[in-house]
Amino acid sequence: MEKARLVFLGSSASTPTKNRGLSCAALKYMGEWLLFDVPEGTQRQMMHCNVSMLKIRYIFISHFHADHFLGLPGLLATMSIHQRDYPITIFGPRGVKERVDKILNAALMRLTFEVKAKEVRKGNVVEEENYSVRAFPLEHDVPCFGYAFKEKDKVGEFSRKNALALGIPEGHLWSRLQKGEVVEVNGKKFRPEQVIDASKAKKGKKISFVFDTKPSKNYFNEIKESDVLVHEATFSEKLTQRALETKHSTAKQAGMVAEQTRCKHLVLWHISARHKEEDKLENEARTEFNNVTVAKDFLELEV
Amino acid sequence: MEKARLVFLGSSASTPTKNRGLSCAALKYMGEWLLFDVPEGTQRQMMHCNVSMLKIRYIFISHFHADHFLGLPGLLATMSIHQRDYPITIFGPRGVKERVDKILNAALMRLTFEVKAKEVRKGNVVEEENYSVRAFPLEHDVPCFGYAFKEKDKVGEFSRKNALALGIPEGHLWSRLQKGEVVEVNGKKFRPEQVIDASKAKKGKKISFVFDTKPSKNYFNEIKESDVLVHEATFSEKLTQRALETKHSTAKQAGMVAEQTRCKHLVLWHISARHKEEDKLENEARTEFNNVTVAKDFLELEV
Repeated sequence: MEKARLVFLGSSASTPTKNRGLSCAALKYMGEWLLFDVPEGTQRQMMHCNVSMLKIRYIFISHFHADHFLGLPGLLATMSIHQRDYPITIFGPRGVKERVDKILNAALMRLTFEVKAKEVRKGNVVEEENYSVRAFPLEHDVPCFGYAFKEKDKVGEFSRKNALALGIPEGHLWSRLQKGEVVEVNGKKFRPEQVIDASKAKKGKKISFVFDTKPSKNYFNEIKESDVLVHEATFSEKLTQRALETKHSTAKQAGMVAEQTRCKHLVLWHISARHKEEDKLENEARTEFNNVTVAKDFLELEV
Repeated sequence: MEKARLVFLGSSASTPTKNRGLSCAALKYMGEWLLFDVPEGTQRQMMHCNVSMLKIRYIFISHFHADHFLGLPGLLATMSIHQRDYPITIFGPRGVKERVDKILNAALMRLTFEVKAKEVRKGNVVEEENYSVRAFPLEHDVPCFGYAFKEKDKVGEFSRKNALALGIPEGHLWSRLQKGEVVEVNGKKFRPEQVIDASKAKKGKKISFVFDTKPSKNYFNEIKESDVLVHEATFSEKLTQRALETKHSTAKQAGMVAEQTRCKHLVLWHISARHKEEDKLENEARTEFNNVTVAKDFLELEV
């Protein structure tokens, strides 16, 4: 399976700090970048870790609070300065088109490429040959979505030898067999299992991004068994009441979510500026779940 | 006279770079901050050099290109998080109110304080007891203003002793005499020169900010004899033709402007991301004017 490169461009909540930009992550898969939230400062953070802004294909916005999308116009402006000439698609909650238009109109922008804005609902929002991205609602005080990147499962190992022996010519028929379809050659039908060794099937990787939310079983099914669960952890346990009131999560709660959804690795982000001690948050989450990392800016994971 | 603290929060043109934020400066005078332009990233740059965002009284916007004002909504959002409770006034070219409204509406903002947006024309836009700020049009491809901060001149040294000997009671009458007014006590008139030693008069300091523009005599009179002239220098001499086409200035041209307007110190900012060698720009400006500094982020000057 293809390796994905997951880069944290920021990790703070509400306001940036000296050490943390606002929470945002970029995911590179098969040469393209997917961007999850685009807060103020995103374009400059990208420069610090060689995320190619011209190779961003999709931007996923969780919600329209100020700390989650105000880097959009500056990023698009800089893409235009670099003469980007192919479309970008921006996903977000209801009203994304109007908001993107508003913010682009406020600045005197002449973009060199097309911006497509698409409203998301629960379900797959991107369906590519090798991966999909699914949106799912979170529980915040305004409409807010999480997103799950899912690499397509590999049904098994394709045998060129068997295929050629059976007289199935190389090309689109092979792709169809790999996708699990039955194909026909000169009136003769072939099933995938005739050319695919199912014992070598592999599950595609799953990376889930949970933005501002109180912990809720409503999204557990969407993120279950993620290889990496990126979950907000705005507050420490001491501020559980505050988390409840503001519809955010504590580090401990994020740990509980990772445990209950059987994820493999939990990365905490969206850390309140008041929390300077990362160890404390990590330890709180570790009381519930074993494999925890507190995101730092420019942290990179190979998944 | 009061010392002013001039802090450069950014120095780049069009796009930020790893080392330079977008051009922006903060000026502290008598405990308050004035902010000149507010590009993306301003709030975080402030954190790096202890500019108190809660003490910003006025924001002056030069024009509405993307690299000059997109830090506004994030800055106001963070002020609100810190419970700012007194108004802020934002000056800018025609349409500033609509643009500020548009950009604030795009984000779901509930500000804790009043935002006053005021359109500027050529002339004084702020008139305080101890200083004024004057706007003046520049020559860019959209309406663009420069701003000049001018400390009030000190007409001379006030003599408490003489004032008390003449029977003028301490208080507002003293202030009025210091402002050059004639006052009356028990039917008797007193002129300023009776209590003020004019031989100790002092000229107030002047700091001028010239944003995106081609060099033009139209603004020379506004910036003349500045203690510090902050002037855009987007390009090196080699790109003079490009500067002309895009209505920007070269470093050498900025030097000519400083020389012809008899300024004391020239600071170059708004440096194109393509120019990595500051020495080169400084040397080009020095062929025209002696006292040149190329702004770096977080450069501080006491004026």
